[in-house]
Amino acid sequence: MTASYDLVIRGGTVGSATGSFVADVAVKDGKVAALGLGLPSGMREIDASGKLVLPGGIDSHAHVEQVSAGGLLNADTFESATTSAAFGGNTTLISFAAQHRGLDLRQVVDEYAARARRGALIDYAFHLIVANPDRKTIEADLPALIAEGHASIKIFMTYDLIKIDDEPLLDLLLTARQNRALVCVHAENHGMIAWMGKKLVEKGYVAPKYHAISHPRGSEAEAFNRLITAAELLDQPIMIFHVSTAEGAAVIRQARGRGLKVFAETCPQYLFLTKQDLDKPGLEGAKWMCSPPPRDIADQDALWQALALGDIQVISSDHAPYRFDETGKLSAGPNSTFKQIANGLPGLETRLPLLFDALVSKGRPEFAGRGLEAFVQLTATAPAALYNLPNKGALLPGYDADIAIWDPQKTVTITDAAMHDHAGFTPFAGYTATGWPERVIRRGEEIISHGTCMATPGSGRWLGRTGGWAAEPSGQLAVDMDPATNFGASLL
Amino acid sequence: MTASYDLVIRGGTVGSATGSFVADVAVKDGKVAALGLGLPSGMREIDASGKLVLPGGIDSHAHVEQVSAGGLLNADTFESATTSAAFGGNTTLISFAAQHRGLDLRQVVDEYAARARRGALIDYAFHLIVANPDRKTIEADLPALIAEGHASIKIFMTYDLIKIDDEPLLDLLLTARQNRALVCVHAENHGMIAWMGKKLVEKGYVAPKYHAISHPRGSEAEAFNRLITAAELLDQPIMIFHVSTAEGAAVIRQARGRGLKVFAETCPQYLFLTKQDLDKPGLEGAKWMCSPPPRDIADQDALWQALALGDIQVISSDHAPYRFDETGKLSAGPNSTFKQIANGLPGLETRLPLLFDALVSKGRPEFAGRGLEAFVQLTATAPAALYNLPNKGALLPGYDADIAIWDPQKTVTITDAAMHDHAGFTPFAGYTATGWPERVIRRGEEIISHGTCMATPGSGRWLGRTGGWAAEPSGQLAVDMDPATNFGASLL
Amino acid sequence: MTASYDLVIRGGTVGSATGSFVADVAVKDGKVAALGLGLPSGMREIDASGKLVLPGGIDSHAHVEQVSAGGLLNADTFESATTSAAFGGNTTLISFAAQHRGLDLRQVVDEYAARARRGALIDYAFHLIVANPDRKTIEADLPALIAEGHASIKIFMTYDLIKIDDEPLLDLLLTARQNRALVCVHAENHGMIAWMGKKLVEKGYVAPKYHAISHPRGSEAEAFNRLITAAELLDQPIMIFHVSTAEGAAVIRQARGRGLKVFAETCPQYLFLTKQDLDKPGLEGAKWMCSPPPRDIADQDALWQALALGDIQVISSDHAPYRFDETGKLSAGPNSTFKQIANGLPGLETRLPLLFDALVSKGRPEFAGRGLEAFVQLTATAPAALYNLPNKGALLPGYDADIAIWDPQKTVTITDAAMHDHAGFTPFAGYTATGWPERVIRRGEEIISHGTCMATPGSGRWLGRTGGWAAEPSGQLAVDMDPATNFGASLL
Amino acid sequence: MTASYDLVIRGGTVGSATGSFVADVAVKDGKVAALGLGLPSGMREIDASGKLVLPGGIDSHAHVEQVSAGGLLNADTFESATTSAAFGGNTTLISFAAQHRGLDLRQVVDEYAARARRGALIDYAFHLIVANPDRKTIEADLPALIAEGHASIKIFMTYDLIKIDDEPLLDLLLTARQNRALVCVHAENHGMIAWMGKKLVEKGYVAPKYHAISHPRGSEAEAFNRLITAAELLDQPIMIFHVSTAEGAAVIRQARGRGLKVFAETCPQYLFLTKQDLDKPGLEGAKWMCSPPPRDIADQDALWQALALGDIQVISSDHAPYRFDETGKLSAGPNSTFKQIANGLPGLETRLPLLFDALVSKGRPEFAGRGLEAFVQLTATAPAALYNLPNKGALLPGYDADIAIWDPQKTVTITDAAMHDHAGFTPFAGYTATGWPERVIRRGEEIISHGTCMATPGSGRWLGRTGGWAAEPSGQLAVDMDPATNFGASLL
Repeated sequence: MTASYDLVIRGGTVGSATGSFVADVAVKDGKVAALGLGLPSGMREIDASGKLVLPGGIDSHAHVEQVSAGGLLNADTFESATTSAAFGGNTTLISFAAQHRGLDLRQVVDEYAARARRGALIDYAFHLIVANPDRKTIEADLPALIAEGHASIKIFMTYDLIKIDDEPLLDLLLTARQNRALVCVHAENHGMIAWMGKKLVEKGYVAPKYHAISHPRGSEAEAFNRLITAAELLDQPIMIFHVSTAEGAAVIRQARGRGLKVFAETCPQYLFLTKQDLDKPGLEGAKWMCSPPPRDIADQDALWQALALGDIQVISSDHAPYRFDETGKLSAGPNSTFKQIANGLPGLETRLPLLFDALVSKGRPEFAGRGLEAFVQLTATAPAALYNLPNKGALLPGYDADIAIWDPQKTVTITDAAMHDHAGFTPFAGYTATGWPERVIRRGEEIISHGTCMATPGSGRWLGRTGGWAAEPSGQLAVDMDPATNFGASLL
Repeated sequence: MTASYDLVIRGGTVGSATGSFVADVAVKDGKVAALGLGLPSGMREIDASGKLVLPGGIDSHAHVEQVSAGGLLNADTFESATTSAAFGGNTTLISFAAQHRGLDLRQVVDEYAARARRGALIDYAFHLIVANPDRKTIEADLPALIAEGHASIKIFMTYDLIKIDDEPLLDLLLTARQNRALVCVHAENHGMIAWMGKKLVEKGYVAPKYHAISHPRGSEAEAFNRLITAAELLDQPIMIFHVSTAEGAAVIRQARGRGLKVFAETCPQYLFLTKQDLDKPGLEGAKWMCSPPPRDIADQDALWQALALGDIQVISSDHAPYRFDETGKLSAGPNSTFKQIANGLPGLETRLPLLFDALVSKGRPEFAGRGLEAFVQLTATAPAALYNLPNKGALLPGYDADIAIWDPQKTVTITDAAMHDHAGFTPFAGYTATGWPERVIRRGEEIISHGTCMATPGSGRWLGRTGGWAAEPSGQLAVDMDPATNFGASLL
Repeated sequence: MTASYDLVIRGGTVGSATGSFVADVAVKDGKVAALGLGLPSGMREIDASGKLVLPGGIDSHAHVEQVSAGGLLNADTFESATTSAAFGGNTTLISFAAQHRGLDLRQVVDEYAARARRGALIDYAFHLIVANPDRKTIEADLPALIAEGHASIKIFMTYDLIKIDDEPLLDLLLTARQNRALVCVHAENHGMIAWMGKKLVEKGYVAPKYHAISHPRGSEAEAFNRLITAAELLDQPIMIFHVSTAEGAAVIRQARGRGLKVFAETCPQYLFLTKQDLDKPGLEGAKWMCSPPPRDIADQDALWQALALGDIQVISSDHAPYRFDETGKLSAGPNSTFKQIANGLPGLETRLPLLFDALVSKGRPEFAGRGLEAFVQLTATAPAALYNLPNKGALLPGYDADIAIWDPQKTVTITDAAMHDHAGFTPFAGYTATGWPERVIRRGEEIISHGTCMATPGSGRWLGRTGGWAAEPSGQLAVDMDPATNFGASLL
Repeated sequence: MTASYDLVIRGGTVGSATGSFVADVAVKDGKVAALGLGLPSGMREIDASGKLVLPGGIDSHAHVEQVSAGGLLNADTFESATTSAAFGGNTTLISFAAQHRGLDLRQVVDEYAARARRGALIDYAFHLIVANPDRKTIEADLPALIAEGHASIKIFMTYDLIKIDDEPLLDLLLTARQNRALVCVHAENHGMIAWMGKKLVEKGYVAPKYHAISHPRGSEAEAFNRLITAAELLDQPIMIFHVSTAEGAAVIRQARGRGLKVFAETCPQYLFLTKQDLDKPGLEGAKWMCSPPPRDIADQDALWQALALGDIQVISSDHAPYRFDETGKLSAGPNSTFKQIANGLPGLETRLPLLFDALVSKGRPEFAGRGLEAFVQLTATAPAALYNLPNKGALLPGYDADIAIWDPQKTVTITDAAMHDHAGFTPFAGYTATGWPERVIRRGEEIISHGTCMATPGSGRWLGRTGGWAAEPSGQLAVDMDPATNFGASLL
């Protein structure tokens, strides 16, 4: 009798956002062909009894082989980053094509696409960072690129060289609306952060830990509110990146309660770290510097609660790797003030184990009894749905056979040395997590097997994405469209 | 070659709360055996191409063969009710074992169980209505019955003969907490409704439509708030039944935002009807009388929004069938005031077609692009999860093969004559819905086929339910347990 | 040259709710005749240089010579209570005419009026406690008594023997509206308190301190919300007595923000005491037992903030004197549980010195720089305005010459022995206050002079009060009156 | 017998923020000497029986003899503006010393002071507009000028040539805090307004009415929230000028509820006009153009409610006079788009009659029965208190004898021709008001008498103001000062 399938993963507990069940998973032509009990045989069989068979992780926010506005190249190539991601249980990644002032967006996209084609060994897509919102970008390049499958824009409300002010923000929201792209935003109040940094340095508070103080809590909620006001004016869906404070989460909850299409993400650094982690001797604290900074335990609790309530839908890594040496964090030398140190943490490889440990093994109370469902939802199913990654994020017939097989008993203590990215350190070194991905299968091909990577660089595929429900406007415009109240003006 | 499966439903689009996909569904021994593309053959095969293959509906709130506190028997037997439910696409129903003042709860449960065993042709469970919270009920019967698989209690905060006051409410919440049962509540302010009714009748406003006026909007939000305060004191999860007002939904949203375990349900009568429907000649409006009453269009919109936000998780029918004659609505004769007319509407058969039409066919904007997922979630997956109905509510390997095959193109205008329950009318007569269940399969057995019922009365099974994540307290007690603030008192 | 005035108080700093200024105050025929610089001479002159000349205090909530529902007479007569009040800087008091179940309201009022006529030595009015809301009370006695000048009703939502349920509450709100009386309410959730008391005693937590635990924080906010819902239905102004929790204050703020006519009061026991004060050996803690109980420091801060924001408008004493012996607190003997101990504290004499010290001498930050204005407003001007006490509460020409002359430098440590009421103790013993009233003048007659009382029992006058702006409905009825939405029903 | 006083106003009803009373008002040396019944005679006597004797109005926001950033001089001189103000019942005005980019603040103040000395015939003070927040302005000029008596700063968050961005805003808030000045703010989101204007003009919507559309409602609440976040960071009191929307008022209410020192003002144009007023033929609508624009009836209601709740404390005119000709509104010619037309309305003379009519004569329901007290509070007592104008704003012994005698029966229809300012029109032409000031007395000198102005230009006095309770920080810094959480950083 010939094998019916290319691969059958047998006897594991299959996890989904809805519930879990014991079943075989059959793969054919890179797709899930069947889920069932006692399925026919496959060319290859994996015994998954006692294991969890989960959708491969989707990391929807990572900076890879990216050049900063200041010219600093981050430490990872697509090869190193996707290798690290794969070891961490991921099969898809969304990174950035980053325009800076004066750059041509299409050319930027072409360059990043070339880098990814060369190195990526898991599937990928790009968010388009827009920092040069000139007429060509807005009216020509963005509509064309979105139509070609780059259906999400990323903008920054802070950072001197790339920030978008309120007026061009509206131009971008409008073009996104007209072309059905989701707008992702790094939302912090630039003036407050700049002022705080200036004052702190003036007074000699220059250690890395003062980075945390230089981003006042209110600078986040303020920017969220301003962004939401703009998005509401034009009825444009937005995704707020890396929520870090309880107040920020509350602003999002209020907006969603009014019916606005506001989505949000947080990251492990806001769920597991606090600003106390930056309080290390010398410049060591730089390893924990990211923006926004880690906050307090009460914020962690508020973010878990916001995840449980559905106010925040996604947990990504915001992987931003800078080495702790003169090529990265310490490029301004050993006497750097915190304002001279690059912000960003590596996180592709640790995201899923940390979350598995918290949600499944330890059972955060906010999700009690539903931790596995939450894990799958927050790290795979929801990002696939929000960013419209077709046939990704769940193990269902016809979906891509992107699978991570987890050993729920395996306990690992995270170390710098064990990581496969090029940052050279992890801010989570010393954390012990129970539950670890032992095999990772991408479109039916096993790419990670018990600690060995078997994939070819460049074997990852670009995922074109257009529109999707999340990017669809609701049809309710705050910019008055009713002739009775608006004197007939129509802006759209 | 022998058939691998008892039944294979081939080529349909399978719907789930997560997403939909084209697949065959294989059934064996009453369970879903496999989902997949090109599955082996079954003893029986159904061609479902162009059809939607969905989990059978779960109606978690229906009054069946129930005697009111006033002695009025409602119009349906388990046979008629479950027949009607099955025609409407349902495979599971939760009805009530209804204690009245002076009755012994165990005896009540035994009686309802006997009735169901005799007549039910879909699977069923009971919520235990407690109206006689004496010591035996609280300390002996409830703990035993919950342990035996009746893991949900229902109480009324209004209705003269069965209402539970604030003090015994706390006794019930405490026993529920100690025994891990969910507490479902009809929450309206009794005094306000009684006072309004008295005043309206005094002044001669006696037509059925004044029933809507006699339940002031605030009487709902008030009772929700009071109930939540009590539940918070003891950290006991609650399910608020039949939310009807925007203000009520807002109170729930606030409570959930504080992290409380507050679940909620609404019904088609609050999503599709308004109080204007009661404004009919003579006593005709009595057909639209239910409690709480239908409200306004703005409330409908707020409820849809609350469903989209996850503040309300379930849509049930609250089926409560009274005939429009002297055996039911008109038992007090042709000169009845609205206070003398039984409250309640039939709805088992119309719930799913109305919701399918709104969510899937017409695409309510709150769910745009995700209407099918929402339909499955709200009517099957969520009630199974909340009420802990094991292996129900989704089409996954190992789950019960409870399946409704929908023709998404079929358009039907609802009529009184087409209904299979014994109420004799439907408040939705005249509604036209696109999308209709053409086959219904219960544990692998086709019970409805293109308009014919093929099931044997009594073939439905009772579903024992214990505990579950929804009924689990969060561990955060408002009744102070910290010796520092509480002088060491412990009530639990 | 003949004297122009009966009395001139010369050279003091006159305080008002608006601002303070140095001026002479001239009195003639019991009224303020003039305020000015260098006024003509009076028959009598008082040198007030370096002193504060303030309106006499108005204590709008005190239980005097009152019989409880259980038959317990409190410790004070009108003579002792008003003597104590006068020593504390007060010139007006509102106490209660307290109906119990089965009593005739008019007869009750006549009895209290007779007692006051005999003993009162400051001016007084009555709130009418209604505990027997039968038809005669509602339809006959209340309308007549309100018209005669008793323009405020008091009801209790808790206490077994006198509590008013939700349905008769609406009857009372309606009759108040129709007759323009303010409805004052002791609002706590009865069932929660009863349940907690039952459980605590069952488990042996019987010491006075458990009284504080037996009134859960939420029992206050819940009752406020329920009361406000009822008042909103009928558009009837209410005064919520003795707010004790931050949550309660928040509910009031929300209601006022919606435009509802909700007024509120707090008392020194909620601003200066906490539940820790009840934690004393044996039954000693009974001296600090009142309902609601003192709460926590965070509640004190929230109440000060609510006063500064105008959400709470009045500070009264809620004087309720029970001796710490077998005639009062210990009437059930030395083994009493907290449920057997009368609730209530004396406070007529300490209210103003405590508040002067906090607001004027120490300068609570919420009022910084405006503490004297706040003191006058909260203790005299506002109660006069809210309860419509004509020509009371401010020192303006034509107003009653009710004056307290305060020495802002005098520092006094409060002791049981120094009090002039008959409770025998004060819960504020040991508090040191800077600022003390050295002379008190009632309608031009000096009744307290440097520690000596010179007034004749019975010289106080009853103050008839009708209507007033606070008791006026706003005209916005929640009970729908619009024929378009209400099917034409009119309840008023 | 010689007269005791310079002037006695006899037998009128004296109004105050606390209550009203019939009394004589005696004046000596420009001050109120006494209030009383039957006061001794004065050199001069005015019979005020049947009249209201009120504190002279204080208009705390008016643009007088001011040059715009674009170089446009407004239509009024100090002489014409203060004449108009006096006719409208005012005795004090706060206008601006307006720095533009590149100007030296001290020199600016000197120039405005010289203009006022020459022309003002009522008393006055200046808010210092800062538009050039360089080091000299922040560190040298502002501290010195505040110390000299200019204790309030005004900044703009919008208008291209003068707007202050978020970072310099913090510099200004900090210097204000260190020197105890109140910071007044025109808070609208600049980017939104600029973007809307650009889009509207692009699409040909150029008529004056589109000015109203170009300021989206959300642009106000957004800017309030951002400003409040900044002020909270540094614990600096702020005054938000000219609130126009319900949402804006709600943001203020929330901030005050958190205990922040946020004060607010509105103006008659937001209480009596709507955006429909701009809908006139040709450019006529320009007469109703101001920023923010008039909104809707629902906003008017919300603002009245916010005034009643104390969330908004002051009503000023924001008088900004531009003639409807080529010297003013039409400086860009007859084909101007709304973006080319100067924003601003005259209002000094109409503010008090409009408010008297609404509050006293018609009795706005929010203040029912307390309209006269509200009128005095909102237009005189509160601005005096907030801006620390010593001895202004009330008729109390020792206070300046700034008095307006109102005839409460006099009915006047407002016309362009009747106005005494130089704008040439009033947006309130055609309004009929009952109640009019017939005499105005400034420091004891009658300056307006039955329609005739008798004051000498330059006879108004500059009022030095330092600190005051409103400008005092609360001591609660959001910029963390606790070494435990802030790593010891101190910014102040």
